[in-house]
Formats: sequence, structure tokens, C-alpha cells
Amino acid sequence: MNAVSTDVLISEVGPRDGLQSIRSIMPTEQKKVWIKALYQAGVREIEVASFVPAKLLPQMADAAEVVKYAKTLPGLTVMALVPNLKGAQAAIEAGADKLTIPVSASAAHSMANVRKTREEMIEEVKKITAYRKEQAPQVKVEAGIATAFGCTLQGLVAEDDVIWMAEQVIAAGADESGLSDTTGYANPAQIKRLFKRLKAAIGSHAGAAHLHNTRGLGLANCLAAYEEGVTSFDSSMGGLGGCPYAPGASGNVVTEDLVFMFEAMGIKTGIHLDLLFEARKPLQAGVPNEQIYGMVPQAGVPKGFESATQWSA
Amino acid sequence: MNAVSTDVLISEVGPRDGLQSIRSIMPTEQKKVWIKALYQAGVREIEVASFVPAKLLPQMADAAEVVKYAKTLPGLTVMALVPNLKGAQAAIEAGADKLTIPVSASAAHSMANVRKTREEMIEEVKKITAYRKEQAPQVKVEAGIATAFGCTLQGLVAEDDVIWMAEQVIAAGADESGLSDTTGYANPAQIKRLFKRLKAAIGSHAGAAHLHNTRGLGLANCLAAYEEGVTSFDSSMGGLGGCPYAPGASGNVVTEDLVFMFEAMGIKTGIHLDLLFEARKPLQAGVPNEQIYGMVPQAGVPKGFESATQWSA
Repeated sequence: MNAVSTDVLISEVGPRDGLQSIRSIMPTEQKKVWIKALYQAGVREIEVASFVPAKLLPQMADAAEVVKYAKTLPGLTVMALVPNLKGAQAAIEAGADKLTIPVSASAAHSMANVRKTREEMIEEVKKITAYRKEQAPQVKVEAGIATAFGCTLQGLVAEDDVIWMAEQVIAAGADESGLSDTTGYANPAQIKRLFKRLKAAIGSHAGAAHLHNTRGLGLANCLAAYEEGVTSFDSSMGGLGGCPYAPGASGNVVTEDLVFMFEAMGIKTGIHLDLLFEARKPLQAGVPNEQIYGMVPQAGVPKGFESATQWSA
Repeated sequence: MNAVSTDVLISEVGPRDGLQSIRSIMPTEQKKVWIKALYQAGVREIEVASFVPAKLLPQMADAAEVVKYAKTLPGLTVMALVPNLKGAQAAIEAGADKLTIPVSASAAHSMANVRKTREEMIEEVKKITAYRKEQAPQVKVEAGIATAFGCTLQGLVAEDDVIWMAEQVIAAGADESGLSDTTGYANPAQIKRLFKRLKAAIGSHAGAAHLHNTRGLGLANCLAAYEEGVTSFDSSMGGLGGCPYAPGASGNVVTEDLVFMFEAMGIKTGIHLDLLFEARKPLQAGVPNEQIYGMVPQAGVPKGFESATQWSA
């Protein structure tokens, strides 16, 4: 089933961002079932794995196999997170279409997250894009700016630092740079201000909004980003990932709720809500001890609800 | 503690809308403690009770006593829900500053909720405003349009019906008419469209946005309403009320999260977040078996967070 057209891109990060944030390890075969269900619901970009040492993140030990499987799904953009050149080489070898490199606007978070300064991470981006240019020019490289809206370690992150970092990673050869609210600190006014500055600074290289729902503002922040012209959104099925606070608090913006919001507004996501709700089953089956969030799956869609997306036969 | 100035009015509906939707009955003395704590946090409008027969809503049997208590708090606008003239007389006698009359845009919901047609409710508004004019001209009358964004009984509610109903209640003498998303069906595009039409139809009589979080869109919808020029918002501490779906789903928009969103955006609410969080304690103590929601109280405010509201000495 394919959408006739779409207005926004929903990039599902659950299999990477979600699964690496929880204690449970989803079996490889179950990951495949889940990714296929997401694909069948119309999801056309999925961050499927992280290429990091398995001793650091055993949840991601099967990254290469998962990428190879995802590559069998026609038209799917298969993304992988890579913190360094070694990871990028492995991801490209496995067949990833797009690499995402975690860089931080917060100096403190950069050290804590990747054990490198921001300047060292810019050098890493250069190495990766140089390797890509030689070995796999078709592969896209994104470097999203983590802690763009504040940091749990250093608190305030200067907006100039965020824009500077985005300019640096684009100058270092990345194709796109988006903004990540890693800590769930963002508010809609800040979202509009920073995405406007991002667009002014790097133009068409401005990438996705990666927003969290830690303080309940996830959808309001996505709305603000959309109103500012952002058309690419990261989200996670069931709100998996990030910094969960029970009950009701989730990490990443919940894909199901985000798709509902856009479709209800008449904005086409290309994702079929009923099939998306179905894809919660393999997720829950794969990590039975984890809490899965999502308000629309629980409440159901409104009576008489019609999606914006139209489907080709 | 008083705010120097405010940009928006947060009208707390928990003591009425919240408490009447749950099974537990909060003791009168505990209601007073809770209302005082809300007041001390800077809340300056509270819907404290519903004047309906005690056999229908035993949670509200102490309505007159609660109104009388609330009237002892200087500067507080004490609101009461009244479904008919008899309720209005009792509320005015108790000392309420403002009456809110529930009218529905959905014919089906009107019958289910107040056992009257929409036309009969318009007649009731006329009776109440005529009585007010003679007996208590200082009392304000609001008639919010329930099911303005869709109805669980009849599904779609025509936007023309919503606007027609708002025009009718203003013509019947109400001072204000706002829009209520009773069922949690609204989306931000619909919110903007309808509040724009409301303003065009009834001008300065356009009242509050009363929005629910049933599908997680509560704050996004409040943001949309704010962007459309709405400056008065109903919300409920702990998300009490409405149609709860556990876990994480709440009925009314959560006051704490809404205040946080506005304050973080630089929009002054006049409400002190720390003291607001404190006011959750008497609420929880008064209904110990009920689930209290709210993401910001759980996650805490961001490191380095500063409120927009300034306080006079």
C-alpha cells in the first residue's frame, strides 16, 4: 500500500533510539517483524540500528543483520546511527542508506555522550563524509544537534552554539543537520526561534525535528516546528526511548499520536493509522516487560475520523 | 503573592469538572484546603462547584459552602456551573461571581448531558440572564459550547452549528461563549478555524478554550488557540476529569503542564509553578484513590528554567 503523496516525513527511530534506551534486548527476528510491520503501515524511513561496540550497547549487537534485513523492503530509507568512522564503515558495509551522527551543542553532553569534545566530533564528521565521498557517494549523512534546547548537565545551551554547531557539521560535509531536544526541555517559542535561525544559517540543509515528550510538550513542539516550515520529524513508536518518567511520561514523541495529529489536521504522513496501531503488537511482544505509551491507540480515533493520506490501489 | 501582570488567564476547573467526574468524594474541608493552595499559587479564577441536585452528583452536595469559602479569598473569581435557573439562583445566593452554563453544539449530547434540546437550553440561558439582570447584575454569565469539535454520540458536529449556538447564547444575554472539546476530538487546525469563526461571529464575547488531553493533543491545541488570539484557558490540576484512559491519558488539559508551557514560552500566567506543584498534595490527599496526571511535576522543570511571570513584593 502506497500513499499518493505526502506532506511530511515521519522518521521512526524506535528500533534504534527506543530499543537502545531500555534494559530489555529485543531478539533480532522480532526486530525484523516489527520493522516490517512499520513498513507495511507506510513508514518509509526507519533508524534501525546503532553501530557501536556491542559491549557498550548489547541491544544493538545485531546492527548489521538488521540493516541487511531492512534493505529488503523496497523504498525504505534505512538509517543507522554512527558515532565515529569505524561505525560508519560498518553501517555502509551493511548497506545503510543514511547515517546519522550524534553531535551535541552542549560541551558537557558531548563529553558524556560520545567522550569527545564538540570540535573532535566535527573532525569525526569530516572523516565520515570523506570516507562516504570515496566509498559510497549515494549514502546520505545527517548530523542532528543534540541538546539543542538545553542540557541536563550544563543547563542553558546558548542558541549561538547550536547554530554554530550546525554550520560546522554542514561545512564538514554533512547533508543535513536537524535539531534534537534530547532532554525534553524545549518549548514552542524556542522551537520556532531556533528552527528559523537554523534555516537562515544552513538553508536547505536544515533537517529533522527530533523532539521528546518528557514534559508533555512533544506534540505542541512538533506543531510549532511544522508551522516554522519543518517537514521531517523523528518519533518513536510507543514513545520508547529517552528519559521515561512513569506513568504517562515518555521519551521520544509517540509516532502514533504524531501521525494522528498531522492526519487530523489534513497533513499527509503516508502512514495508515490502523496498520500503525497493529505494529504495536510486535513491539510489545518483543519487549514484553516495557511500558508502551500512546494516547490515541488507547482512546481510539474520533468517531467519523478521516485520514488525510490517500492510498493508491 | 501577586503577579505584576499576566498575558493569559488560566481558569482552574478541577474542583468542579475534575471532582464531579470521579467516583471519590472529596470532603468539604479538603476542598477548601485545595482551593486555598491553588489560590496561593496565583490561580485567580476557579470553577469551584456545580449547582445540581445532590442525588445526581453527590460530589457537589456542598456547592454552596464551597462557594462561600472561596469568596473569602481576595481577588478570586469564583465560578460555578449551573445547568438551569434553579441552579443559577442557588449559585448567586451562595455568592458566585460567574456562572457557567453547559450548552452543546451536538443535539445528541445536549439531550444526554442536560436532558434538554439545544433550543430549550437557549431558553434556559435567557431565563438565567433575565434573573441575573434583576437580582445580581454584577454576576457574569458564560455559556461554553460543549462538543464543539465532535461528539462521541453523533460523531461530526457541523461547524455552522457551533457558531450558531454561540451566537444564540450571546443573543440570549450571556457575556461570553467559549468552545469546549468535551470529547478530546480536536486538532490544532480545527481549533484555529473554529476560534477564528467564533471571534468573527461574536467578537469580544468570544470566551475560553476548554480543551481535553484524551488523545495527547491538549497542549498542542492550547498553543493553536493561543496563536489564534485566545487568552483564557480552562484546565484541571492533575488532568482530573473528562474521559480518562489509563495509563497516561487524562481528561482535561493538565494545569501544571499548561502553565509550564506558557511560562517557558515567555507568556505570563500569574501562577507560581513551585506553589502549583505544592497544591497537588491536598488534591491527592483529598482523593487518595484517584490517579493524578502531569508530566512536568514528575520530570521537574528544566535546569536553569525561569518563569515569565514577575512577582510584586
